[in-house]
Amino acid sequence: MKIGRIIRQSPDGPVPRLVSVHPDTNTVLDLAAAERRRLIERGASHRMATRLATAQFPGSLTEALETGTAFTDAVTRLHQQCDLLDGIALTDVNWLPPVDPPVLRDFNAFKNHEVNAPDVWFEVPLFFKINPSTVIGTGGLVTWPVGCEHLDYELELGLVVGTHSSNLTPETAHRALFGVTVFNDFSARNLLRYEMDGRLGPAKGKDFCTAIGPWVVTLDELDLSDLAMSATINGEQWSAGNSGSLVWSIGEILAYASRSEPLVPGEVIGTGTVAGGSGWELGRRLAPGDVVQLDINGIGSLVNTVGDPEPARWNPQPRDRSSAR
Amino acid sequence: MKIGRIIRQSPDGPVPRLVSVHPDTNTVLDLAAAERRRLIERGASHRMATRLATAQFPGSLTEALETGTAFTDAVTRLHQQCDLLDGIALTDVNWLPPVDPPVLRDFNAFKNHEVNAPDVWFEVPLFFKINPSTVIGTGGLVTWPVGCEHLDYELELGLVVGTHSSNLTPETAHRALFGVTVFNDFSARNLLRYEMDGRLGPAKGKDFCTAIGPWVVTLDELDLSDLAMSATINGEQWSAGNSGSLVWSIGEILAYASRSEPLVPGEVIGTGTVAGGSGWELGRRLAPGDVVQLDINGIGSLVNTVGDPEPARWNPQPRDRSSAR
Repeated sequence: MKIGRIIRQSPDGPVPRLVSVHPDTNTVLDLAAAERRRLIERGASHRMATRLATAQFPGSLTEALETGTAFTDAVTRLHQQCDLLDGIALTDVNWLPPVDPPVLRDFNAFKNHEVNAPDVWFEVPLFFKINPSTVIGTGGLVTWPVGCEHLDYELELGLVVGTHSSNLTPETAHRALFGVTVFNDFSARNLLRYEMDGRLGPAKGKDFCTAIGPWVVTLDELDLSDLAMSATINGEQWSAGNSGSLVWSIGEILAYASRSEPLVPGEVIGTGTVAGGSGWELGRRLAPGDVVQLDINGIGSLVNTVGDPEPARWNPQPRDRSSAR
Repeated sequence: MKIGRIIRQSPDGPVPRLVSVHPDTNTVLDLAAAERRRLIERGASHRMATRLATAQFPGSLTEALETGTAFTDAVTRLHQQCDLLDGIALTDVNWLPPVDPPVLRDFNAFKNHEVNAPDVWFEVPLFFKINPSTVIGTGGLVTWPVGCEHLDYELELGLVVGTHSSNLTPETAHRALFGVTVFNDFSARNLLRYEMDGRLGPAKGKDFCTAIGPWVVTLDELDLSDLAMSATINGEQWSAGNSGSLVWSIGEILAYASRSEPLVPGEVIGTGTVAGGSGWELGRRLAPGDVVQLDINGIGSLVNTVGDPEPARWNPQPRDRSSAR
């Protein structure tokens, strides 16, 4: 099952809609619209068919996942009972990020080439948090944040949580997963290095933009231990890796993430950058207008264009150390 | 205007309800219930009065703030037209956190006694992010996270965003604020110090629990430059401070927070700990069962009890540095 979100026009303006994706027929199925037709064929009034269908298939994947297994049950029933040829052509689709995550975390779980990595990175599966308000989907424009001198991509696998759960163990943690997606943790390298010296973690160096998509693929369709990954900039491949090179397993990531705090439906967790999966490791930088395409075999292509630098409207004035303490 | 959220029983189980708080009469007004009565008095059917009232006053303050100025307009109209004595006694109320924040950040904006503070702290108003899934209100139990050997409170002012906005300047930033609340950034000191060595910022040391409440007070009721603040543990005052000792102004905090990323309605931003506003600075620690009360003059009291330590169900096994890189 592949689930995405698209924008459609309505008398109330553009609205987000959940879709299932069918690459074999190059179509997507608007789930609420198809469910509405299914219910009407079975005797529902137009009004109540619309109400039931939009309650089961809202515009938010997070809300849909909050209905529990009712969501995948309803998609499966729909695929059995409706005409999949009633879909929208893939070429006509405007994508949104497939999930609207209530929480966005990023781990550091791949082998990599960071020679000066702190010891802590080898002792626990460390992570940081990213502002979930700035998530974009495939086709979305990447903000070039104020003060950024070195914009970069990061090639990652994204985990999408399906079930509210806490204090998992690695053995059982996969049950909390709904599926996976492609994850681009866009980074402003100079801001990031500056902030990390402050020991409070990434902020302006990461929070301006994270891309996920193009859709979420459920676990039954993939072998997570062997997915080829690549990054292609303006048509030239810069990075290649494989999901099999994780140092911390997906079970360990989820178990640690859920320790004394919940995983929640719709939450998205990046695995961290696969070795060689950023321009920083290659001595290369993105420029405004660059087209950044990340591919993960079995999932799809996440494509984003880099925007123009944002001008500063104001700059903080440093404080005098002695008077501020 | 003081806005909170409470739990009420219904045929569908416990439901969150928005209330306005009236300390003069020791009551809260259930906003949706009062609006429903107001509409019925003006000829609405019961069904449509309920639908309109719960759309204007949902159980989420974030969603209510997403209706723009319609929210405060509707509260003001209600207070003019309804009988405030129709309220619920304060003593009968089970509080929720007043906001369900989509994003939770914490700054470092007060004068303090951290002698080894990194230079970055004096150059920009630095912040970190906290998991918003673990927010509790007054009366809520504080999780004692796995591995915590030193649980602590932090006495802070909490800013509640009302309006979607980006790239603000300090002069205009207050327009984005809906109000303020009391903010307790509970911290696991040993986990925090450990994580900060990894330079990715606070994670397990902060994400287990943040308390906000008891309600949100709008800016027209307060002088933010002079609010007495205190922390009282089991009836003994440990900390006292004043909101006037900010090194970075609230305008600067909001302007920096909104740089190249949006502030969003319902987002909560901590100012950081007022000097002396934690046990760590005093050489004191919290214990299970402790009652932690934070007071800010003009807002109210945020009271939480510390829970028992959570046992570890699993521990990460360190990786060999050479094979992991």
